[in-house]
This record gives sequence, structure tokens and C-alpha cells, in this order.
Amino acid sequence: MIIVLKPNISKQDEMSVPKEIRKLGYRPHIMRGVARTVIGAIGDELTHQTLEALPTNFPRAVESVMPVQKRYKLVSREAHPSNSTVDVRGNLIGGKKFQVMAGPCSVESEKQLLTTAHAVKKAGATILRGGAFKPRTSPYEFQGLGLKGLKLLDKARRETGLGVITELLSEEHAEMVAEFTDIIQIGARNSQNFQLLIAAAKTGKPVLLKRGLSMRVEEWLLAGEYVLSNNNPNLLFCERGIRTFETYTRNTLDLSMIPIIKKESHSPIVIDPSQGAGRADLVMTMCKGAVAMGADALLIEVHPNPAEAWSDGAQQLTLDMFRRLMEELKAFIVAAGRE
Amino acid sequence: MIIVLKPNISKQDEMSVPKEIRKLGYRPHIMRGVARTVIGAIGDELTHQTLEALPTNFPRAVESVMPVQKRYKLVSREAHPSNSTVDVRGNLIGGKKFQVMAGPCSVESEKQLLTTAHAVKKAGATILRGGAFKPRTSPYEFQGLGLKGLKLLDKARRETGLGVITELLSEEHAEMVAEFTDIIQIGARNSQNFQLLIAAAKTGKPVLLKRGLSMRVEEWLLAGEYVLSNNNPNLLFCERGIRTFETYTRNTLDLSMIPIIKKESHSPIVIDPSQGAGRADLVMTMCKGAVAMGADALLIEVHPNPAEAWSDGAQQLTLDMFRRLMEELKAFIVAAGRE
Amino acid sequence: MIIVLKPNISKQDEMSVPKEIRKLGYRPHIMRGVARTVIGAIGDELTHQTLEALPTNFPRAVESVMPVQKRYKLVSREAHPSNSTVDVRGNLIGGKKFQVMAGPCSVESEKQLLTTAHAVKKAGATILRGGAFKPRTSPYEFQGLGLKGLKLLDKARRETGLGVITELLSEEHAEMVAEFTDIIQIGARNSQNFQLLIAAAKTGKPVLLKRGLSMRVEEWLLAGEYVLSNNNPNLLFCERGIRTFETYTRNTLDLSMIPIIKKESHSPIVIDPSQGAGRADLVMTMCKGAVAMGADALLIEVHPNPAEAWSDGAQQLTLDMFRRLMEELKAFIVAAGRE
Amino acid sequence: MIIVLKPNISKQDEMSVPKEIRKLGYRPHIMRGVARTVIGAIGDELTHQTLEALPTNFPRAVESVMPVQKRYKLVSREAHPSNSTVDVRGNLIGGKKFQVMAGPCSVESEKQLLTTAHAVKKAGATILRGGAFKPRTSPYEFQGLGLKGLKLLDKARRETGLGVITELLSEEHAEMVAEFTDIIQIGARNSQNFQLLIAAAKTGKPVLLKRGLSMRVEEWLLAGEYVLSNNNPNLLFCERGIRTFETYTRNTLDLSMIPIIKKESHSPIVIDPSQGAGRADLVMTMCKGAVAMGADALLIEVHPNPAEAWSDGAQQLTLDMFRRLMEELKAFIVAAGRE
Repeated sequence: MIIVLKPNISKQDEMSVPKEIRKLGYRPHIMRGVARTVIGAIGDELTHQTLEALPTNFPRAVESVMPVQKRYKLVSREAHPSNSTVDVRGNLIGGKKFQVMAGPCSVESEKQLLTTAHAVKKAGATILRGGAFKPRTSPYEFQGLGLKGLKLLDKARRETGLGVITELLSEEHAEMVAEFTDIIQIGARNSQNFQLLIAAAKTGKPVLLKRGLSMRVEEWLLAGEYVLSNNNPNLLFCERGIRTFETYTRNTLDLSMIPIIKKESHSPIVIDPSQGAGRADLVMTMCKGAVAMGADALLIEVHPNPAEAWSDGAQQLTLDMFRRLMEELKAFIVAAGRE
Repeated sequence: MIIVLKPNISKQDEMSVPKEIRKLGYRPHIMRGVARTVIGAIGDELTHQTLEALPTNFPRAVESVMPVQKRYKLVSREAHPSNSTVDVRGNLIGGKKFQVMAGPCSVESEKQLLTTAHAVKKAGATILRGGAFKPRTSPYEFQGLGLKGLKLLDKARRETGLGVITELLSEEHAEMVAEFTDIIQIGARNSQNFQLLIAAAKTGKPVLLKRGLSMRVEEWLLAGEYVLSNNNPNLLFCERGIRTFETYTRNTLDLSMIPIIKKESHSPIVIDPSQGAGRADLVMTMCKGAVAMGADALLIEVHPNPAEAWSDGAQQLTLDMFRRLMEELKAFIVAAGRE
Repeated sequence: MIIVLKPNISKQDEMSVPKEIRKLGYRPHIMRGVARTVIGAIGDELTHQTLEALPTNFPRAVESVMPVQKRYKLVSREAHPSNSTVDVRGNLIGGKKFQVMAGPCSVESEKQLLTTAHAVKKAGATILRGGAFKPRTSPYEFQGLGLKGLKLLDKARRETGLGVITELLSEEHAEMVAEFTDIIQIGARNSQNFQLLIAAAKTGKPVLLKRGLSMRVEEWLLAGEYVLSNNNPNLLFCERGIRTFETYTRNTLDLSMIPIIKKESHSPIVIDPSQGAGRADLVMTMCKGAVAMGADALLIEVHPNPAEAWSDGAQQLTLDMFRRLMEELKAFIVAAGRE
Repeated sequence: MIIVLKPNISKQDEMSVPKEIRKLGYRPHIMRGVARTVIGAIGDELTHQTLEALPTNFPRAVESVMPVQKRYKLVSREAHPSNSTVDVRGNLIGGKKFQVMAGPCSVESEKQLLTTAHAVKKAGATILRGGAFKPRTSPYEFQGLGLKGLKLLDKARRETGLGVITELLSEEHAEMVAEFTDIIQIGARNSQNFQLLIAAAKTGKPVLLKRGLSMRVEEWLLAGEYVLSNNNPNLLFCERGIRTFETYTRNTLDLSMIPIIKKESHSPIVIDPSQGAGRADLVMTMCKGAVAMGADALLIEVHPNPAEAWSDGAQQLTLDMFRRLMEELKAFIVAAGRE
């Protein structure tokens, strides 16, 4: 930690700070500058968090405290310099091959799900998405088919050979959901529901962790650290749009997370443009950007008839739009050096 | 719902819209304006959410869709024009008397908790706060004493007669936490963890619902609706600061929520300035603003020795600062017409 | 405009609203729904703005007012369905050929500018950027070479045949700057400095309008409308990153503006990844995304020795990085169907 | 500056950094910690800004650079420990007496302005506000009466003895506006229009500087530094609401700026709740919070008939609401220790 002292303080006030630093288990190192004196507190910041109270407790002496060390370990590229890959029924996410996950926002019926599954497979997707438990802003909206939805996903998986990804909403469902899915999705609203992250990690299934609506990079990496530190190395980061002042789109899809996650971490990065754009007509363009910038996979909402979808109809592609999208993406996948 | 059509569309495109509206269960009402034609879709919006996909499915005809009806019911002032009050061991929150909840961020030890409890009671607080389960951004930080912390809260409650508020992090702990507390706190990071909200509501204890870091008013009211629609009328809204571009403070405390919640809802509004400011020296001023603007209660972090607190030391008041604050607040409480 | 009434209001309160609407020059059209009564106010919204005060003046009757009509005209795609192009010394921006503008943040010296100009031209850029007047957050930072800088830009233009773009900071300099540049740049901090926009428009030179730090799409389009409505059709929109809660990058580059501006307007869209990323190592990846998503041009900061740049060193590419970038972009330009 | 090195770098990479630091005019001071080596660069940061490019130019060695010194001088409380006051026709802003500035958003007519002026004076205001030049988002909206409006303000000033505040939009109008006003207002959209700030400062009139829509505290203080460093000590900071994700209110009024500006600067702080709330019914409550938290003055929009205002009708108080507000504020002014 770096402790910045106020200018023109008394000798006594100045001396109180290194004394406190020592008491809290660090070794102080004093450095006198032109405008400010700065004290380095030498010690492991991960285990000593208490210096942040210095400005409160020594208000006459201490101006600010700045951390130096990174707060995450296992998730960092320092800890694991090469890229990690996550194996989903033989499809590697994070490898040379670009992967596409597609399917409806909510599982609604056998017909809806199987029609979609066959269509997205034919167009080139390798993993089927579909929500059986839905976190809805209002208690009066459709909350998902639950176990019945999970069983339909399993059926689609067996019929098509696609992998399956579905969202986990409750610790109590962790084992049940893990039985029917290949990837457990943690939604944006639960991205700092640490109990749920731990429960998901403990199932041993790969965990796709969406970025929270107002989550900073460090917080996202630390949420990922909850998965890795619970002995589950199969983590996928998924950017799905953040909340900003802009209201034209539902969220602001932050594609800069692709190079940033690649720089800070070894885990793959997935882009979900459907939630980000909130409008089908923007989704297709967003996908091209994601591919060009080096994303490892896409997660796309597709529905046979978005007009009659039970949730989020506005942002789901039709089967035909999806097929066309997959055609158009090919040139960008090649340009990005992927397959 | 109001559906705005694009200008200069063909008769056929225009006619497709009322047809679809009827199919989805609404009655269309066409209104031709100078620059746009607008269609009102008459029906209960709470049960028909699907019109939002119209711009996707009728891209040549439909420009935008605007909801007219409010999405929340039980929580709204329309449903309950007079103020609700929540009774906590005989102390009414939302009534004439202004209430103060105070205590440490985390329960750390019997001595720390009881010292604080006696001091805040003497200064005029009626409810003791203290975290036994702590949601921490990093898995390497102190996660709370758990059951041991709950038992200490219970002991402090019996010794002092103060009510107790503590945070619930996991559905699985709902019954256990309810046994030892008078108010269940739902933290900002779990404000849209709907399973947790339902579990908390079902214990029958009053629920204090913090506003999420980037939660809009409507979303907050709808999260509260999850509590009320699960047969628990004892809801408290708590503003604790939102995430903005500003980095000087930890969060931006949005005091405008006091008049806004009073206008939209009948449930009491509590202000937590400690999380908002992130700095003890700002907390005291924030409290005065909250009182003057008509808040029903304050939730304040107080610690006998913030420098050695196990979490969030920078924002906790000392016992002496708290005593002084309570003195200074008196004039504002009177000016606001409270006791 | 759509006026939403409150539920359960008296007949007299309800009747006051259409009366007021008529008084303000609109024709009221009443529509009774299940939960709310809605009144359409029929008339030209562009010339009648006063309905927004209805909730204040009729607080018992009016819940909210929603505009229906778009507030911009000349800049909209409705007004001009085909793409506009802007001709800069024979290079068309917005046409089939993808354009690159590159150069230093600030013009510092003849050697620095000419070295850069020759290098970026060789790598494929067609327009030279360089600031002669610099808007600096602090009054103690380098404010640009002024007229001397403009003359250096002119010299570089004559030597290389590149077009020139430079920023205008003051109405008083509009004529002078126009003499030495091919495109006038309006910076993010001046994006709603309407006097400056008008002065720039009146020079007749093409105007590149950066998006403000917290500018919504509608506000940006309306700022562009200030240019077009002052008889200057040569407008370029330039996304350079918005301010969000994220602090990892200097700004959040919002690439979704590419399809959105293409949809709403006919004017070309340029991406400035340097300001957005604030870090040279991210700039290169951002450029690939921008090309793939259909941007018409890039605006990139390049410096022979960023370590010794007089402003914004962290985000400028070296000449070698720029050359490599231009190579890498080729495949994406082809994939996007451009030249 | 503090330069944080990457872990596990080669001796040669490490040595390159202090060498560069010396070259740029600083003295390096090396400090080896547990997880990172940190180098202090000792020298005056105000005149040496170039270290920020180190992570770009030494990507293998440098992780990040953190400034230590504050970037503002004259505006800081360090430079001037006691409170500054600004004298407006004998009314001191920043002194013991609480001041209220009130009047219409736009000057519309002699009758409208004089009616308002007399009414606000009678209710206790000492300064009259009114816009003669209006910055409007759309070119099709009312842009103000210009010189005619200034003359009406002057007339109202002579008739009532009130001071006058009005907005400056263009450098070219600085002298003209200064002739008719007692305080020059710089609006939020021009808060980093540095040429305008300099022109305003040079008139010698007090300058009220509104916070930009997404302006951080440091940027605001530095914008104020442009006024003070141009030999004008009469600066007023004015918080008027920032842009956040929340859409319920027009802006989010950030009342925490009251204690923050008081802590960082000696200049007075004024609160404008009208722009912040965007709704008259919230303005009154905001004012009470501002007074309680120690603001030096309020700036309030008041109109004889908001329903027919030519701009921003929704947020203007009626004369009667203003009179009632002034009554209700009295108790809070006393409680805050003001007159």
C-alpha cells in the first residue's frame, strides 16, 4: 500500500502513521517528495486490508491510501500465462475454433425448443441455450418452466448432440440443474451473489459468469476468483452489456472487455449481444465486432417466433436471421485467425 | 401500451399491426397525428408483456412501443394511500418518531459488539446493526462470524433491549437468521436475487431492501413487490448510494429517493449514508440532509475502533462521533416535524 | 404527445386536461384503457414544447407525458434515405473506401509532425490529424502551439497531399482554423457548445462532431442538426468513448453507435479508439471491431515517440505499431465489404 | 508519481525505468515490496505530466502509474484555509447569511420578469436569475431574447434592488453580458469550455460554475482553477445534478458535493435543485436537504405560470410554491446555524 500524507503536518502527526502501520503488520518505508511525503507499507495486501481506515483515524496526517497489489490470484494471467480452455462435450471454448451458443431466452415448449435446437445446429452452433429458471424484474412475469424446462433441454441435447447451457438462480437447485446442463450460467443480477457462485463452482460443471450491470473489471475478476478458489478451473467470462446513461439500447455492450479479459486473465471470454443490444436488428452487427476483436464464443438468443416469445421477444433473432448471421460471420472468423 | 408507427408506411404494413395486437389479446385504438400514427393497445399490461417485440417483428411498420401502466401494484401508493409503518419491538418505523439503527459493519467479538450496543443505545439509537454474514468482493476477505455472530447479536439484544438488524446472504440461512434478528437486511448486491427476497419475505420478519448499485426506481419498487406479493407487508426501502462515474466517493448517495419513494410507495424509506459516502467525515453531513428531506430512519456504521475494523474501516464512525452526530441531528429532526 | 392520466381522478380534473391541450395549440384525442386513460395531443411537437409542464400544473390529473415525434429532421435517415458522403480532397468518407485519419494528439514541432505525416501516409492513411489548440483539464498543461501549429499542418498537407483535420476551440478562431484545415473537429467537451457548432458550420468546411462524454443518441443527433440547419451538409459523427462507472479504461468506447447512427442518420460514422481506450495496447483491437461493424473511418493517435509526447502519451501508437495495425486491418476491411 | 512495476521482470527491464524517470526530470526512489516493486518519482508533478506514458513505452516493466500530488492549487483549501466570500451588491455568498437566487428559466417578457422579481424579493430572495441566452438541445427550440432579455434583467435590478445572475454562452458576448449582470453563470454543457471560462473570468464579475453532466470532482476544481488563475477570485461552484443511469429524475442531484467542496476548496457552494430534479414537486424537498447539509445558497427556477413557460416548464415553481418554500426553509436555516 502507498499512504500519501497531507502537506505541512506536524512532526508528531507524521510519526503517528508509521507507528500505526507497524502495528497492523506492515513495514513502513518513508519517501519524501517535493509536494507530499509518501509512505510505502510493505507486506502482503491480500491478508491485511485494514490500512484503508487510515484517513479516518489519522485525519490530520493521512490524505489517501492507494493499493499496489492485485487482489485476484488464480484468475490472473500472471498465475497461468497460457490461455485456458473449457471442454463442453468435446467442443473446446477458448481454443482455435470459434464457438456459438444459441437458443431461446426461455424454454417454452418441446416444439419451440426442438425446432430451435435443430435449426441452430444446422446453422453451425455447438451449444444450445435456454432458460428454465428466469429471473424477472416483476413477480408477475413468466418465471420459467423449472424442472420441466430442464428435462426438455436434456431431451434436445440427446436428440441433437448439442451441449446445453442454462441459468442457475438458487443454491438449492445447484445439483438438479447440474444434472441436466453442460454449463451453468450465472446471470448479471447474481454476479455478486457469492453463495450462488460457490454452489455453482462446487457442482464441478463449467461456470459462465455474466458481468454485472455495473461491475468493474476488478470486481468481475474477483467474482471469477470465487469459482477458481472453489476448485473449479472451468470458468467463462461473459460480457452482456453494462448499465450507462444511454437509453437508446437496453444496455451498453462493452466490447473492450474482450482485449481486457484476454490481458488480465487466462479464462475465455464470451459475448452475449442479445442482452446488450436489446434489439434483434443490432445483434447481428455486434456479433461481427465481437468476432473481429477476438472473442472466444457468442451466446445468442434465437426463437422460432419472437413475436410470441414469453420473455424478451424484442431481442431474439428468428431462425432465418440466425442462419444468415452464421453465414456472414464466416469471413470475420477467418480474418480473426479462427476456425 | 402505445405503439408508435413509422411515417410513410404502406396501408398493408399499417394494417398488420392492429391485427397482431388483437391476436395478442389487446383491443387496438388508432389515432392519426401530424407526424406519426399511434395505436393504443387496450388491455391489462401486467398480464400481456409481448407487445415489446413488435418493432422486431414488424420492422417496416413499428417504430417504438411505450408502456402506459405501472408494473407494480401492492407497493404503490395508489394501492395504499396512507403511510405504512413497520413495528420493530415496539419502535415504529415510518411513524412520527425518527428512528436510528447503528452498529458495526461486521460483528467481530462480544466485547466489540456489546460496547457498541450500549454506546449507541445511550446516544439514542433504538436498533442495533451488525453483519454476521458478509458479502465480500474478494474470496480472501473476512466473511463474517456466521452463527456465532448471530448469537452475539441476540445476546446484545437481550442485554440492551435494542432491536436487531442483520443481513441475509443465503436462502438456506433464512430460518436461522430470522430466529436471531428483528429485521432481515437484503444487501445491494442481492437486491435482484429474487429467490433470496422470497425466502426473506416468507420468514414473516420485516425486510429492509437496499437499492442495488444501478437499480432504477421502477426496478426497486418491483423488487419490493416480490416481498409484498409473498404476504409480507413489512417492507423498508433503504437507499445506500448508487454507482456513477464519480470516484471521489465510494458511491453517490441519492437523497432524491426520499421524496420519490414517499410519492410512489407507502413503505418507509431508510438512508444508509455509510456505504454511500464511504468516508466517516462525510457521513455526518449526509445524515443531516436525510433527516431534513423526510427520511424515516438512518442506518449508520459505528465501531469502537474503526482503525482495526475487520471490514470497511474507512466509513465507520467512532462511538464519540456517533454521540456527537445524534446531538447535532436533534435540531433537524424537530425542523422536519419529527420526534 | 401522449398524456397519461392518473387513475381514479374526478371528472372535473379529467376535463381540465383536454381544455389545456387545446389552449396550447393541440387537438386532444381521448382513449380509455383498462388501467389508465390516455390523451393524444395531435399537432406538430417540434413547434409546441410546452406540454411537458402538465404534470406540474395538473398534479392531480396528469401522471406523465411522452413525446411521439422525433426532434431532429435534417440529420435523420427519413429525410435522406441514402448514405451521405463527405469529400476531403478527393477522398470520400462514407463511400465504399474505408478511410483512416492518423497523426499526433498535439502538433509539437515540424520534425515531429512531418515524420508522422510521411509515415502514416506510407502506411495507408489519407488524412492527417493533429491538435493546434488543445482543451486541457488543467490550466497548467500544454495548450497547443496555436497558429504556429496550424501552419505546420498546412506545410505537412502541402508536402504529403494528405487532408488535414484539427480541433476548433473558440468561435473567434473559426475563420483562421478553416483556412488551414480540411475538416473542423468539435471535441467531446464542446459537443453541446452550440455557438461553436454554428461557427464551425458557417465556415462551410466538413465538421467532425465528437460524441460528448455523457451524450445520449438523441442529443448527439440534435447537435448534428445544428450543423445541417446552418446550411452545412458535410457532417461526420465520431464516437470516442463515453463516461461510465468503469475505471479500467479512460472511457468506454461504445461501438454500438456504428449500427445506431447508420440506422438513424445518413451521415458517416467515424471511430476514435485512442480517446476511448486511453491505452495504446487496446487501440489496435478496438480498430478491428470498428471496421467489422461498418464504421466509415478511423481517427487514430500516432506519435514518433509517445514517451515524450506533450499530451496524452499513454494512448498514442508508435509509427511501427500503426504500420502493423494497417496491415492487420486489411482482412477485416475486405470481410466488411469495403476497400 | 508512484510507478508500480510488474512482478518477475528481468533486471534489465527493471533498470530501464529509473533511467527513463531521470531523463524526464524526476528523481527515482526504489521501494521493494512483497508482491511488487514500486518506484517513487520525486519532482513537481504539475510541470511534469509525461510519466503516464510509461506503461505504453515500457510494457514489459511497468504495470501502472499513480499521481500523488493534487493538480489544482489556487482553488484548494490548502492555498486558502478560510472560507472565501463573494460580494453581490452587498449580499455576501459564503458568509453567515444564507442566500437565495430565484427567477424564471428564460426571460420572456417585461411583465413575466418583473412580476417574478417583485414576488421573489418579497419572499426573501436577494438575487434574480433569468436566462437571456439559452443553450437548447434542439436548434428548433426558443434560444432566448438576447440583448433585449439582458436589458429587462437590468430594469428589474434597478426596480427591485435585487442582484442579477444570467448565463453566458459565447466568448463574444462576455463584455456585453457583464454590463447587465452581477454574476456570470457558466452552464453545465460549457463547464469545460475553457475559452468561455477565461472570457468570463476576465470580465472581473463573479463566476458561477455549474458542474458538468459527468464531471468528476477533480475536473470541476480544475475548471474553477481556470477562473482563479485568470485573476478572478470570485468563484461559486454550483451543483445541478449529474447524469446517471436513473431516468425517473432528469438528473441525479449530488448533494454530497456540499461537504466535498467545503473540504477541498474555499469557494462557496450553491445548489440548483430545479435542473437536478426536473420536477417542481421534488424541488422543495431537495432545498431542505441542501440547507441542512451546509450549502451557501440556492438557485431556484420560479415562474408566474409554468404551464406556459417557453422552456423547462416542468421544473419551475409557481410564485406561491416559492413563497411557501421560503417559509418552510426557515427552520432548517436556523438548525444549520445560518441566518
